[in-house]
Amino acid sequence: MTPRLDEIVARFGGELRGDGARTVSGLAPLDSATPWQLSFLANPKYRSQLAATRAGAVILAPEAAADCPCAAIVTPQPYLYFARVSQWLAQTPPPPGIHASAVVESPVPDSASIGPQCWIGPDVEIGEGSVLYSGVKIYSGCRIGRRAILHSGAVIGADGFGFAREAGGAWVKIAQTGRVLIGDDVEIGANTTIDRGALGDTVIEDGVKLDNQIQVGHNVRIGAHSAIAGCVGIAGSARIGARCTIGGGAIILGHLALADGVNVSAGTLVGKSIAAPGSYTGSVPFMAHDDWQRNFARLRHLDALADRIRALEKRLAELENKS
Amino acid sequence: MTPRLDEIVARFGGELRGDGARTVSGLAPLDSATPWQLSFLANPKYRSQLAATRAGAVILAPEAAADCPCAAIVTPQPYLYFARVSQWLAQTPPPPGIHASAVVESPVPDSASIGPQCWIGPDVEIGEGSVLYSGVKIYSGCRIGRRAILHSGAVIGADGFGFAREAGGAWVKIAQTGRVLIGDDVEIGANTTIDRGALGDTVIEDGVKLDNQIQVGHNVRIGAHSAIAGCVGIAGSARIGARCTIGGGAIILGHLALADGVNVSAGTLVGKSIAAPGSYTGSVPFMAHDDWQRNFARLRHLDALADRIRALEKRLAELENKS
Amino acid sequence: MTPRLDEIVARFGGELRGDGARTVSGLAPLDSATPWQLSFLANPKYRSQLAATRAGAVILAPEAAADCPCAAIVTPQPYLYFARVSQWLAQTPPPPGIHASAVVESPVPDSASIGPQCWIGPDVEIGEGSVLYSGVKIYSGCRIGRRAILHSGAVIGADGFGFAREAGGAWVKIAQTGRVLIGDDVEIGANTTIDRGALGDTVIEDGVKLDNQIQVGHNVRIGAHSAIAGCVGIAGSARIGARCTIGGGAIILGHLALADGVNVSAGTLVGKSIAAPGSYTGSVPFMAHDDWQRNFARLRHLDALADRIRALEKRLAELENKS
Repeated sequence: MTPRLDEIVARFGGELRGDGARTVSGLAPLDSATPWQLSFLANPKYRSQLAATRAGAVILAPEAAADCPCAAIVTPQPYLYFARVSQWLAQTPPPPGIHASAVVESPVPDSASIGPQCWIGPDVEIGEGSVLYSGVKIYSGCRIGRRAILHSGAVIGADGFGFAREAGGAWVKIAQTGRVLIGDDVEIGANTTIDRGALGDTVIEDGVKLDNQIQVGHNVRIGAHSAIAGCVGIAGSARIGARCTIGGGAIILGHLALADGVNVSAGTLVGKSIAAPGSYTGSVPFMAHDDWQRNFARLRHLDALADRIRALEKRLAELENKS
Repeated sequence: MTPRLDEIVARFGGELRGDGARTVSGLAPLDSATPWQLSFLANPKYRSQLAATRAGAVILAPEAAADCPCAAIVTPQPYLYFARVSQWLAQTPPPPGIHASAVVESPVPDSASIGPQCWIGPDVEIGEGSVLYSGVKIYSGCRIGRRAILHSGAVIGADGFGFAREAGGAWVKIAQTGRVLIGDDVEIGANTTIDRGALGDTVIEDGVKLDNQIQVGHNVRIGAHSAIAGCVGIAGSARIGARCTIGGGAIILGHLALADGVNVSAGTLVGKSIAAPGSYTGSVPFMAHDDWQRNFARLRHLDALADRIRALEKRLAELENKS
Repeated sequence: MTPRLDEIVARFGGELRGDGARTVSGLAPLDSATPWQLSFLANPKYRSQLAATRAGAVILAPEAAADCPCAAIVTPQPYLYFARVSQWLAQTPPPPGIHASAVVESPVPDSASIGPQCWIGPDVEIGEGSVLYSGVKIYSGCRIGRRAILHSGAVIGADGFGFAREAGGAWVKIAQTGRVLIGDDVEIGANTTIDRGALGDTVIEDGVKLDNQIQVGHNVRIGAHSAIAGCVGIAGSARIGARCTIGGGAIILGHLALADGVNVSAGTLVGKSIAAPGSYTGSVPFMAHDDWQRNFARLRHLDALADRIRALEKRLAELENKS
C-alpha cells in the first residue's frame, strides 16, 4: 500500500503542506525514515531531529510546521493521527473464520477470527469482528464484546481463587459460578488471565486495554477506557474506575475501589481505596548495592530514629529554657 | 438443582430454623439474593445487611441467628458451610475423558478429565479424578496427585533456570533432570508455571492451592495446605512450610526456608529464612505522587539523616554537661 | 548411559585422580550421591560435605582435591565442568520433527523440534537445532536463531502495548508492525512473552537466557549473554546491555538504558538509566508485621523528620554560640 499524501489527508483530515502527489510506503521514526516513508513528531523531546530528517513527509503540530524540511501533514494531535494512519497502512488483521485446529463449543459470528488451537467453551458469546490469536482459552459462559483483540495465551474465565479453611488447615473450594463479561473494543495481552466471578461476575468495560501477563481476580470491575501495563495483579473484588492507568508490576489489593481517572505508578502496591483522581506512587529508589545496604538498614529502625528526634527536641527545649 | 432446606441440612449438618420445605435454586450475597436463593453471613462487616436481605434463607453463626429475618441454617462455621454447599449446587466439573485434541503420551485414569489441546508427555502419572482444563502442559516424568484441578495455560515440568558461566560470559545449560511431584487435592491456577528439579525434584505437597501467574522455581518444596496468591515468584530451592499463605506479587528468594504457618503479605520480598510462624511484611505505603517524591527522596539519604541525629545527640550532651 | 571416569576426562578435560575404569550413571549432590553417581563441589559452602560423601567420584577444584575421600576429577571450574557433563549425560532433547498437532505456516529446518500444539505463523524463520516445546506461539515475521530452546506457553511477537488517546479518553491502537529478532543459543522460559516492535524490532541478542513468566515490551533490546530471572517486566524501548543479570520480579521501566555488566537485584524497580556496571538494588527489608506497621508509617513523614533534624541543628548551633 503506497498512498499519496493527498489521499491520506482526504481520509484522516489535517492540513497538507507540500506535494500531495508524493506517495509513502510506510511509517518510521524521524531519525530513520527514508524519503519513501511518512514520519511523525509528537514528543517535543524529538523536536531536534526534525531539521535533519530524511522522511518524505512528517505528521506534526502547527507550532512545529515552520521547521519541517519536507512535506508536512499539520494536525493538532499528531500522535493520534499517526495511530490512525498506522492502522490503515498495516491492514493485516487475521482473516475471519475459525481455524480447523480450534475447539469451538459455542456459535461464533462470521466476522470473528478464531486462531489455531483456541478453545471456546460452551455458552460463550463472541462479538462481531473480534480476533482471538492462537491459543486463547475462554471458559464456559463468558462474553466477549465486539472488535476485541485477544492475544495468545490469554485465559478468560478460569476459576477465581476462593477457599474456606477447615480447622485442620485444609482448604475447601468455593464453586466459582459467575462469569467474565467483557465490553466492546477491549484488547487483552498475551498470557493475561481474567478469572470468572465467584457468585457475581467479573466485568471489563468498553475500551479497556490490558497488556501482557496481567492477573485479574474474581469479581473485579475495570471501568471504561482504563489501560493497564504488563505484570499487574488485581486481587478479587477490586473496582478500578474509568480512564485509569496502572503502571507495570503494580499490585492492587482486593475489596477496594479506585476512583475514575486514577494513575498508579509502576511497581506500586495499592493497599487501600483511592477516592480522588490523580497520580499515586509507592516504590523505593534503587541505588548502588552498597549504598542501598547502608541506607536501607535504617528502615528497620526508622521508628527508633523518630524517637531519638523527639527526645532531642525535648532536651533541647529544656536547655533553651534554662539559658 | 433446587434442593429443600431440610435436604441441605440432612446432607451438611447445621440447625434449621424456619420452613424446611422451602427450596433454593442457588447462592447469592445478602444484598442481592432473591427469595429463591440461599445466602450466607460470614464476615461481621456484612452483619448490617442481614435485616434487609430478601434471601429465602441465610447460613449464619449462632450469635447472628436471632436477627435473621428469614429461614436460617445455623452453623459455627458459616463460610465453610457455604463453600461445601456451593460445590454441591454447582456440580459442573468437566466430564471425565480425554478430549480428541489433547496429546497424551502416558496412561491416564478413566476418572480424569483432560481438556482440549492439553499435552501430557511421556512417563507422566495423573491421579484419579484430576481435571486438566484446555491447554495444560505437563512435561515428561512429572506426577500429579488425585483430585487435582489444573487451569488453562499451567505448565508443569519445564526446565529450571540453571546455568554455569564461562569466562567470556556465555552460559552453559545445566541439564534439568529432576521431576515435579504434586500431591493430592492441589489446585493450580491459569498460566502458573512449576519447573522440574535440576538434580532432585520440585515438590508440591497435598492440599496446596496456587492462584494464577505464579512461578515456582526448580527444587522448591511447598508444604501441605499452603495457599499462594497470584503473581508470586518463588526462586529455586526455596522451602515453604505447611499451612503458609503468601500474598499477591510477593517474591521469595532461593535457597531459604519458611517455617510452617508463615503468612507473607502481598508485595513483600522475602530475602532470608523465616524461622517462626507469624505475619511478615515488607512493602512501602503509596501516596500522592508529589508527596512521594518529597518523602522518598529522603530514602537515598537515610544513612546521612541517622548520622546527623547521632551528631546532634553528641553536641547536645556536651552542652548539657556544660550548663 | 554409564560412562567410565576416564571417558569423561577424555571428553571434557580435567585431571583424573583415582580409578579411571569406575563407571557413573548420573549426577547427584554431595550429600545424597551414591557410589554409582558423580558429584561436584563448586560452592565453598558445601565443602564440609566432602569428607562424608558416598559419591563414586567428585568434580572439584585443585584446592579441594586433597580432602576428597573418593575418585576425583580436578578442574579449575568445577561448576562449568558439571554443567557440561550434565548435558552429556542427560541427552534427552526432544527428537527433531514437527508434531502432527502443530500448526506451522513457515518452513522449518529438519533439525528443529516443534512440539505438540505449537503455532508458527507466516514468514517466521526458525534456526537449525531449535526446540519448541508444546504450545509455543510465534507470530508472523519473527526470527528465532539457532539452538534456541523455547518452553511451553512462550509467546513471541504479540502486539506491543501502544495506543494514542482521544480527547474523550478512548484509546486508538497503534499498529505494531515491527518484528521480534532472536539470536543464537537463546533459552526462553515457560509463559514468557516478547512483544513485536511498534515500528522497529524487538531484539534479543545471542546467548540470552530468560526464565519463566517474563514480559518483554516492544522495541526492547537485550544484549548478548544477559540472564533474566522469573517474573521480570521490561517496558517498551528499554535497552539492556550485554552480560547483565536481572533478579526475579524486578521491573525495568521503558525508554532507558542499562550498561553492559549491570546486575539488578530481585524486586528492584529501575526507573532511570544505569551508566556504569555494578550491582543495583532498591527493595525494602521485610519484618514482623507489627514492626513493619510501626516503622513504615514513618515513611509517610520522612520529609517532616528531615525538617525536624534541620530545625534541631539550627537551634543547637544558636545555643552553642551563646554558651
